[in-house]
Amino acid sequence: MATLQGDNVVVPQMKLERLLSMKGGKGETSYANNSQAQARHARSMLHLLEGTLDAMSLPPPTDTFAVADLGCSCGGNTLFIIDVIIKHLIKRFDASGCAPPEFQAFFSDLPSNDFNTLFQLLSPLTIKGSLEECLAADGARSYYAAGVPGSFYRRLFPAHSINVFHSAFSLHWLSQVPESVMDSKSPAYNKERVFIHGASVYTAQAYKQQYQKDLAVFLRSRSHELKTGGSMFLVCLGRTSVDPTDQGGAGLLFGTHFEDAWNDLVEEGLVDGQKRDHFNIPVYAASLQDFKEVVESDGSFSINKLEIFRGGSPLVLNRPDDAAEVGRALANSCRAVCGVLVDAHLGDQLSNELFDRLERRATIHARELVEHLQFFHIVASLSLR
Amino acid sequence: MATLQGDNVVVPQMKLERLLSMKGGKGETSYANNSQAQARHARSMLHLLEGTLDAMSLPPPTDTFAVADLGCSCGGNTLFIIDVIIKHLIKRFDASGCAPPEFQAFFSDLPSNDFNTLFQLLSPLTIKGSLEECLAADGARSYYAAGVPGSFYRRLFPAHSINVFHSAFSLHWLSQVPESVMDSKSPAYNKERVFIHGASVYTAQAYKQQYQKDLAVFLRSRSHELKTGGSMFLVCLGRTSVDPTDQGGAGLLFGTHFEDAWNDLVEEGLVDGQKRDHFNIPVYAASLQDFKEVVESDGSFSINKLEIFRGGSPLVLNRPDDAAEVGRALANSCRAVCGVLVDAHLGDQLSNELFDRLERRATIHARELVEHLQFFHIVASLSLR
Repeated sequence: MATLQGDNVVVPQMKLERLLSMKGGKGETSYANNSQAQARHARSMLHLLEGTLDAMSLPPPTDTFAVADLGCSCGGNTLFIIDVIIKHLIKRFDASGCAPPEFQAFFSDLPSNDFNTLFQLLSPLTIKGSLEECLAADGARSYYAAGVPGSFYRRLFPAHSINVFHSAFSLHWLSQVPESVMDSKSPAYNKERVFIHGASVYTAQAYKQQYQKDLAVFLRSRSHELKTGGSMFLVCLGRTSVDPTDQGGAGLLFGTHFEDAWNDLVEEGLVDGQKRDHFNIPVYAASLQDFKEVVESDGSFSINKLEIFRGGSPLVLNRPDDAAEVGRALANSCRAVCGVLVDAHLGDQLSNELFDRLERRATIHARELVEHLQFFHIVASLSLR
Repeated sequence: MATLQGDNVVVPQMKLERLLSMKGGKGETSYANNSQAQARHARSMLHLLEGTLDAMSLPPPTDTFAVADLGCSCGGNTLFIIDVIIKHLIKRFDASGCAPPEFQAFFSDLPSNDFNTLFQLLSPLTIKGSLEECLAADGARSYYAAGVPGSFYRRLFPAHSINVFHSAFSLHWLSQVPESVMDSKSPAYNKERVFIHGASVYTAQAYKQQYQKDLAVFLRSRSHELKTGGSMFLVCLGRTSVDPTDQGGAGLLFGTHFEDAWNDLVEEGLVDGQKRDHFNIPVYAASLQDFKEVVESDGSFSINKLEIFRGGSPLVLNRPDDAAEVGRALANSCRAVCGVLVDAHLGDQLSNELFDRLERRATIHARELVEHLQFFHIVASLSLR
């Protein structure tokens, strides 16, 4: 079996599934300390999430209402969102004159996710009846909680068991780097690059096909798992360009300076060119059209809402005119989300060298990054046909 | 709020709930390396577990069949048991001429449990139809898995959501040390002791009342959570004596030499006598009569089977005549299950001193330990009335 650590060309799906995670712990480059932008972006989209919940028919309050967050990671963002969803639903049940049902929240991510940290952040359970009781029990948890380890590109839940799926900032992660992208005999071989941004039309085609295949499996799996009348609210990186080799904000984060930093290591003789070529970021920022095509071709879901949403910068800066802070913030942001993959490919020491060079390059280009690094998100509200 | 680390007398329930766990990791004193005896005892009771499953009416195969292991810890024992339960049920569905339903397994333990390790031990999911397919898919997992952090002395699951509860070697842990046992003004104050074994009748009464209260809450919670026709299979430390101050094997593990080791620290001036008095092991090995009284007084469950089962020694020894090995094995066994509590009460350094003295004392009494250290287990098969 090929591995990410060797010089082999194939990263098997199982391997990536076992490996990928946001950077755990609480250090400077951890996801916990580099996900404030995601928190801000999530908060700016709450009205869209609530719109999805308002459009649902309320199920009988005698049934458990199950909510699942897919790609939950280990920080406070997932707890915040689940809390918003459940409180909003309790309000709806109250307004309809029904006592709210029991709620169950499933927090799902890959087995490499730090579930221990997440579980320790959960407040004690206090099952309350009415909205008033729920709001009065400050800090208490009004739902049963469970963690579900696994890839959302497989089945995760029994059939007809979930009312609402939520997934934010996760679905742009592919299940694997397309094999042809790492095959030096293929026209899709992504020579001298580590991302689709600025790559050849063949590489772009391979990425796009992987995205289509993955999203189709995702939709098909969720369509089995949703209860009748169930809904999904999905947020993932998107792009405004028709051309997939222009990945917008993702291109500026994972291509451009990051790619130049890899090239620095190759030119300095620290990393073999082929070893660099065998590293690729398994991310695809889709266009609305890309997304829509897969949903329509699958046919299980109606699209209630589909839009591209300007999320803003992933960098949280105290002094945007301090080039050193901008450089460090970009390197930390990049490392928080793909550092685990780089560490596995290069080892810790070379990984440090890489992110040092990224920081230096980003510092030089600080003004450009402050002005142009913008994330766009695809926001989709889907319901089971 | 009082804490285990201070000199205060009350260990609040929430604190113990957040703290207690079997020793994580893979070290010499870890639970993973000191639970082979539990594995062996569990295997010797499989026919009783299978008897419980055979006595159930099979639910419609269109419903998800949910199994929960309470007090699962983080090792292979819980995966083994869940596998046994699900394979046995698939056989029953097959024999009845029905295609088996989808299975979902919930692994539950306190939030301090090492769920990350457990989740990484799970095989990839392969949902198969028939028993043949299930058996053929060697090493694959034929059920949806989820982890549920929380105390089983509270609600853990929505109403009517679980078909089978399993719990082994956990229900002898009380939700807290009874408050009066740590109150120097109470007749139940457990002066110069750290366990109920050999204690006063007042201390014993306080432990027994805590046990009755805890087991009643456990039964009431599970009765809400079980589906109609649901069953429970429970195994916990039991005693053969009528007198609760004779805790049998538990007394030999947590009283006796362990208590003498605490007294060594007090006599050497390393630990204050009051500080020792404020440490108590929150374990109660019940008699069959104790257990039966609580089940009958709760009234939600019928007792299908209730027996005391000779589990054998908790020590796994290569050379039972090697006193040093016996001493080390006893100290490691004790530390694996209560080391986390001792560390929190004394700090790591004094905890090391304590277990060193326990090892020395157990080495001197090696022959007695090999001959007399026997665990008895209460084995109960209950179904919802």
